[in-house]
Amino acid sequence: MTFEDTWKPKIDAYRAKLDEEVGPYKALVEGIDYSSENFNAVEALDTLLTEKDREITNSTAKQLVAKQRDGTLTAVEIYNAFAKRGAIAHIFTNCAMELFFQEGLERAKELDKYREDHNGELVGPFHGLPISLKELMKYGGKVTTAGFVCYLDNYISNSPREESVSIQILRKLGAVFYMRTAQPQSVMHLDTDNAITGRTSNPFNRKISPGGSSGGESAAVAMGSSVFGIGSDIGGSIRVPAAFCGLYGIRPTTKRVSGLGSLSGGAGQESIFSSQGPLTRTIDDLEYYMVNYINMGKPWEYDPNTIPLEWKTGVSLPETVTYGILLTDTLVEPSDAIKRGLAYVQDKLRDYKGKKVDVKVITIDHDLMKEAFKQTLQIYGTSKPVHDKLFAISNEPLLPLTKFFLGFANPEENDILTNNNIKEQFKYYMYYLFKDQGIDFLISPTNPNVGEVPKNLTHWNYSSMFNLIDFPNIIFRTGLTFDPKVDVKGPTNVTDYNANDYVNAPINLQLTALRFEDEKLVEGVKLLDKALELA
Amino acid sequence: MTFEDTWKPKIDAYRAKLDEEVGPYKALVEGIDYSSENFNAVEALDTLLTEKDREITNSTAKQLVAKQRDGTLTAVEIYNAFAKRGAIAHIFTNCAMELFFQEGLERAKELDKYREDHNGELVGPFHGLPISLKELMKYGGKVTTAGFVCYLDNYISNSPREESVSIQILRKLGAVFYMRTAQPQSVMHLDTDNAITGRTSNPFNRKISPGGSSGGESAAVAMGSSVFGIGSDIGGSIRVPAAFCGLYGIRPTTKRVSGLGSLSGGAGQESIFSSQGPLTRTIDDLEYYMVNYINMGKPWEYDPNTIPLEWKTGVSLPETVTYGILLTDTLVEPSDAIKRGLAYVQDKLRDYKGKKVDVKVITIDHDLMKEAFKQTLQIYGTSKPVHDKLFAISNEPLLPLTKFFLGFANPEENDILTNNNIKEQFKYYMYYLFKDQGIDFLISPTNPNVGEVPKNLTHWNYSSMFNLIDFPNIIFRTGLTFDPKVDVKGPTNVTDYNANDYVNAPINLQLTALRFEDEKLVEGVKLLDKALELA
Repeated sequence: MTFEDTWKPKIDAYRAKLDEEVGPYKALVEGIDYSSENFNAVEALDTLLTEKDREITNSTAKQLVAKQRDGTLTAVEIYNAFAKRGAIAHIFTNCAMELFFQEGLERAKELDKYREDHNGELVGPFHGLPISLKELMKYGGKVTTAGFVCYLDNYISNSPREESVSIQILRKLGAVFYMRTAQPQSVMHLDTDNAITGRTSNPFNRKISPGGSSGGESAAVAMGSSVFGIGSDIGGSIRVPAAFCGLYGIRPTTKRVSGLGSLSGGAGQESIFSSQGPLTRTIDDLEYYMVNYINMGKPWEYDPNTIPLEWKTGVSLPETVTYGILLTDTLVEPSDAIKRGLAYVQDKLRDYKGKKVDVKVITIDHDLMKEAFKQTLQIYGTSKPVHDKLFAISNEPLLPLTKFFLGFANPEENDILTNNNIKEQFKYYMYYLFKDQGIDFLISPTNPNVGEVPKNLTHWNYSSMFNLIDFPNIIFRTGLTFDPKVDVKGPTNVTDYNANDYVNAPINLQLTALRFEDEKLVEGVKLLDKALELA
Repeated sequence: MTFEDTWKPKIDAYRAKLDEEVGPYKALVEGIDYSSENFNAVEALDTLLTEKDREITNSTAKQLVAKQRDGTLTAVEIYNAFAKRGAIAHIFTNCAMELFFQEGLERAKELDKYREDHNGELVGPFHGLPISLKELMKYGGKVTTAGFVCYLDNYISNSPREESVSIQILRKLGAVFYMRTAQPQSVMHLDTDNAITGRTSNPFNRKISPGGSSGGESAAVAMGSSVFGIGSDIGGSIRVPAAFCGLYGIRPTTKRVSGLGSLSGGAGQESIFSSQGPLTRTIDDLEYYMVNYINMGKPWEYDPNTIPLEWKTGVSLPETVTYGILLTDTLVEPSDAIKRGLAYVQDKLRDYKGKKVDVKVITIDHDLMKEAFKQTLQIYGTSKPVHDKLFAISNEPLLPLTKFFLGFANPEENDILTNNNIKEQFKYYMYYLFKDQGIDFLISPTNPNVGEVPKNLTHWNYSSMFNLIDFPNIIFRTGLTFDPKVDVKGPTNVTDYNANDYVNAPINLQLTALRFEDEKLVEGVKLLDKALELA
């Protein structure tokens, strides 16, 4: 059976369904040339919204829930406003793999009815909130592909032992679903392009990547398709998309959020675990998600691999907060834009008068970093034989970044004891670096550059070093955007840098804390927001 | 350099130091033939104690702390009573690798002085409590060997980044140390015998093993050398010794207790983690240790791999408590003694009037169990190359059970993805078995037999199946002991069973709960203690 005969028709059917869903919304964007090279979808979108659309979809989760509670907004009104943005988002960026508007609407109606029948009581903290889901999360009653062509017939039953635990939790707490978002082939790119639904583009600039692997999410959330977009991250897959699309995004300490019921080609690789978390437009939404998902959702009641650790509320920062700044991983020098962002944050923190803040430049040992990155790639490479098998089933054409990933390591030369021993060595090195330097947080690049062109997304270390040691991270906004006049130099791993490619790209950075300090990390970002005059 | 020329003199020096420490106590045991075949050290010990010795050393931790607080006992009095039992324990069973009585006494004096200087205030919840330590815990200012001859020069500095985190915590909370206990060569036997200090025997019957690898601990604690004996367990190493010596012993869910600073030949093997925990003579002492070690010790402040999960106090059991009973792992049929213990517990639970209790016999799928055990051995085998190297350094003669362990698996044929995928499959199988059957706890054998003769300690699965899936366990007493008249059949893996070998061996069993339900598990054992009329 060839790819063309067997699988191409399935792909066509899958895409036809997606096109059919979005069809009625095409009229909305009439006259807009969204295929132009540096197309800014965010800007174009804004012209298509009514004042009411804006008011609803730019509200925080907390506000939307409060307005449903007091009866000033219905779930259906909320749904309609977000779904409009979601449809436009998909037309402009190709962020979705699956759309089901009618189901979303029915669900919103059902939630409004529940409220009516229960004297204004809501189902839960996510009542009526549209949430977009990375497609690899197994959705009961639908096919889940994780971007693999061979999974195009992978129908998921409604059994609670098959469907994604997080989907079950979010549904129970009142969420509305209508969009499942794209991930790249193999789910192991820092870009988003697959052989089923194709490329997703960055909403700020069509030429560059939205990041990956949760790049469907980052494009969708940046366009305001949902209140929360649920991504997952084993090497940067929440953070790079969040950074490239100007969002907040958390990669929590692993096993605080359940990943049970996610499809992956990497099952059994346990040296680096994947972590699931939300991408949002505000830090308040991010915090709202974490506290409610964990404390109300209690994922450990569904999944023995999830730690029964409540989200601590009311965490306060020390009297003096010390931010370490990592300017380079010593392997690839970041671009001018990233350097400018780091310098700007340093200046703003030093000038901040609202709280005592210290800033310290931190350096990492080059040899250890190099070895740790080498082992990181070896670890990812462990799953190559599984990926080879999955691709062989369909014979789908392999994208350049898939081939790049499959070359990370030779699993036959791999030594699990060395992988893990170097990992532990680097973990304790970083742990004691925090302790010895007295830093509460570490600010660092998420990637060598801002929203990169796809083929240059080859240096994972700025994000993956924290997967290796499982220190939690949040991507935060600096408020700056790429400027071709001053950001003249690219990162040292890019040989064909052209400053005009990156126009409008947001400059976001990464904040890291020690393991299990996720709550403190949120406070660290709130303080940054204040110092950067974003809050 | 040969073993005889280089290493034998170091072994001799190490043993001479141990003999020198215990020398002054030899007079205590004069006239007792403790080398006779079925020697019962526990019985012999009892004749050597004064009423006051008994009163002190048979008190619980809570009582000893209360008496120091109200001034009716000093730390020195407590120390002297326990040290006497510890010295006799070592003479009778060879349980210690290192003894340092003078240091213990000085420490007890220091604690008494602290109390005097602070108006009766104590250092912490372990004030003045003698605690014995498995020797593989790195002790500042001493050599740590983990039973490997090649580590006889492995001096540990006093740096808090080198010494065992748990030793630091216990010291900070007031513990008194004077004994480090034996573990087997490679630390991978369910027996205790090594090329440095030789064989440890079971205090109830010299002919049989005290269990292993924490068999120095089980012998020491059964003899009353300490209030708590700290062991570690990657395949049964706390539980088998606790069971064989009539003790309580917990293998907590991994990463609730810090194992940082323990020496091991298995570093880098992360599919099955080791777990550290106490062996005690009462469930109250076990609970006292866990609540104070975790909540007062806060091990996560020293170790990024330890989960900041407080020990919940005041956990209550459901209205009806359901105990599942696993009679066989389907691979090896247990001995008559074990079967008698299981039947007795069932009867006692069914007759119990103090609380509603249900008992359900549970069976496990044979094929999955077989495959899970196969992968368990493959996982342990991953560290064979490291062990080979460690043994090659000294050329120490390999004991039969070391050779047995080194044959567990061929690491070159190993497949980490298969290891972990089967592990997860078995974990969810057992998780859903608990859920579907509605059981709170599972009662099962710890080993196919009670206190076995060393060479027959070859079937690890009754203990190791729970390491594989990381469900916590506590060993509990049935109150029964081996009876050669009725316990006529051995387990099916033993071909030369002789009922006379096991006289006086306690019949203990294993209780298991779901992951992170360690607190509930303690309540489950307390209820068993009541039903079995032991409390």
